[in-house]
Amino acid sequence: PIIIFQLLPRRRDILFCDHEFFMPGMVDTHIHASQYSYAGTALDMPLMQWLCTYTFPVESRFKDLEFAQRVYTKVVKRTLRNGTTTACYHATIHTDATLLLGQIANDLGQRALVGKVCMDRNNPAKYYKETCQESQEETCRFIAELLDKKYPLVKPVVTPRFAPTCTGALLGQLGAIAKNNNLHIQSHISENAEEIKLVKDLFPESKSYTDVYHKHNLLTDKTVMAHGCHLTDEELTLFRETGTSLSHCPNSNISLCSGVLNVRNVLNHKVKLGLGTDVAGGYSASILDALRRALDSSKILTIQDPGHETLTFEEAFRIATLGGSQALSLDDQTGNFEVGKDFDALRVNVTAPGGPIDLIQIISVTSSSTGDDRNIVEVFVAGRKVVPFTEPKPE
Amino acid sequence: PIIIFQLLPRRRDILFCDHEFFMPGMVDTHIHASQYSYAGTALDMPLMQWLCTYTFPVESRFKDLEFAQRVYTKVVKRTLRNGTTTACYHATIHTDATLLLGQIANDLGQRALVGKVCMDRNNPAKYYKETCQESQEETCRFIAELLDKKYPLVKPVVTPRFAPTCTGALLGQLGAIAKNNNLHIQSHISENAEEIKLVKDLFPESKSYTDVYHKHNLLTDKTVMAHGCHLTDEELTLFRETGTSLSHCPNSNISLCSGVLNVRNVLNHKVKLGLGTDVAGGYSASILDALRRALDSSKILTIQDPGHETLTFEEAFRIATLGGSQALSLDDQTGNFEVGKDFDALRVNVTAPGGPIDLIQIISVTSSSTGDDRNIVEVFVAGRKVVPFTEPKPE
Ligand SMILES: [Zn+2]
Ligand SMILES: [Zn+2]
Repeated sequence: PIIIFQLLPRRRDILFCDHEFFMPGMVDTHIHASQYSYAGTALDMPLMQWLCTYTFPVESRFKDLEFAQRVYTKVVKRTLRNGTTTACYHATIHTDATLLLGQIANDLGQRALVGKVCMDRNNPAKYYKETCQESQEETCRFIAELLDKKYPLVKPVVTPRFAPTCTGALLGQLGAIAKNNNLHIQSHISENAEEIKLVKDLFPESKSYTDVYHKHNLLTDKTVMAHGCHLTDEELTLFRETGTSLSHCPNSNISLCSGVLNVRNVLNHKVKLGLGTDVAGGYSASILDALRRALDSSKILTIQDPGHETLTFEEAFRIATLGGSQALSLDDQTGNFEVGKDFDALRVNVTAPGGPIDLIQIISVTSSSTGDDRNIVEVFVAGRKVVPFTEPKPE
Repeated sequence: PIIIFQLLPRRRDILFCDHEFFMPGMVDTHIHASQYSYAGTALDMPLMQWLCTYTFPVESRFKDLEFAQRVYTKVVKRTLRNGTTTACYHATIHTDATLLLGQIANDLGQRALVGKVCMDRNNPAKYYKETCQESQEETCRFIAELLDKKYPLVKPVVTPRFAPTCTGALLGQLGAIAKNNNLHIQSHISENAEEIKLVKDLFPESKSYTDVYHKHNLLTDKTVMAHGCHLTDEELTLFRETGTSLSHCPNSNISLCSGVLNVRNVLNHKVKLGLGTDVAGGYSASILDALRRALDSSKILTIQDPGHETLTFEEAFRIATLGGSQALSLDDQTGNFEVGKDFDALRVNVTAPGGPIDLIQIISVTSSSTGDDRNIVEVFVAGRKVVPFTEPKPE
């Protein structure tokens, strides 16, 4: 990380203590804001069961705007405090609650892509579903109303949940909406074996899971797909050709026993790659945790095959920052301290009082990777200090 | 964990808030106190190189008692704050510094086994070695002087580093010393492939790595061996027959790419099992981290083989507490809240102010597993409150 820290600007208005440095703000390329309400619980079953048992009942509660306000405020504050200056959010199917998430991110100063979730089939929960037409119309309303707010840092992202819960008709319409409005797209792909088989059954005419999205014009240079644990080399090539990026969510992939993404292979295919917490499939809302789990996952692959080239700390750090900004096609605005980009930054104090690190030797500066939010003493987004929070009055 | 928490005593002298509960103190069955000085760094090479490059140079510094005092005070305070009420420590080859570690643990109120490290060969560092005779004599002096202090909760543990750095003569002497004084024993076993091969070359007459220790009378019902990632079923059977226990150090095993212990198989063999941080092979001095990494490791095995029966949260919790006390043969004194045992306990507040958990739904109580030291608001060892620290004057 030495090279990264040499780039840090010394702002005259900030007093530095010993063992302090600036680093670029981190980017969470995949997080379900609505699922934050049960993060850290319910990790005892695989994906498809998990969705029906835990996820859909909770997501259905977000038609209640008071509940949405409470959860969304907490998740934006928490991720900012954890150093996530940019987040790409899945919300729920509810347009108004998703607009509220956009407003909260704007008010608290986070750079964000916000998506109203679309799903028109294979949802066993009667209380949480929409038709193809509703999904399309509400997506258009969501986009129009969010853009109308002219939030400087918050943008809509077209969000088919994933192929198993979307008809081809809906996927095609969403692809067209994204194209006509030059919008970001996010979804899930190739997370676990059961899901892949389901997609094969639902879309027998497609060559691959990736091909399903490609056929519906959903793979663009503004698309980010979560997971991709089981993508073939051929599919990764299609990712690169279309400019589509991957969000690596290692905590989630391990927690739900989904699989282990071979990040080295993704990098070798020159596919854009960022990190995601995938709350609540991942139990932690911290990209620093995702960074550590990405290193763990790569080391697991080395244990299995000593010929595997383990991800270095520097590579993981890059994926957590610049890589994430590239994955969201926001690297013209954020991701590092290049001249011309916004000042999205964390002031890190390795020896923050009451913090988790005991600094004994100078060599331990790289041990800031073992820190937590207590070591992130200030967070800036586009030059505005967003952590610590300065609230007009206590809640 | 519901069953565990039903056992909690309601002490009249402690005021409980909402979302608070008692849990048994956690047990770290394997931690190198001396290596805490570089925890979180230097995890970029496999075991044998790592020892020579990072570990031996640092351990040699503990002949300086001032340095030892500084590091050992920090590690005991840090582990107490993390909820480790009982720790089994490797120190260094230096008798006086190791006695100091025992004194510090006693003064700060931690239950501890403390071991002067023994190693009389294959140490390439000239500045950090001892002869077989020195090792034996200093071990005897260490035991005599530590027992002479009559610390109520701190005991010596006979500590051959591991077979690759000990001659058969030294191993045999240490086995005899432990037997004659009815002492605990700790060492390492079967951590990675290169080490196993080295032991095979050094002890060609032994049937297995386990057999090396067995031949030298080092496997007893007061022995704990760290790692064991690659033990055969036959070796595990010898563990059970001799009453020897295993310390599972998942953070270290992943960080150094050593291997993944199959905990289910260990449990099926009815071998006593606890968790270890193995600082600094593991970068975290928290048993809560070890618990999370143990679950991750088990889930990795399930990803590789869907037939593998994943460790449950309840099982991991048990291994972190009662299992650890059994592994150290201290389960007559600690490990749970059974009548007759000492009160080693953590007061946990899920919603501790400034803490890492946002409690949104009641279901989230089990998400205390995502907490950290901020959620451990008080720590008791043998009824004495040891966290928060009450120091006579600020340092
Ligand atoms: Zn997701
Ligand atoms: Zn060790």
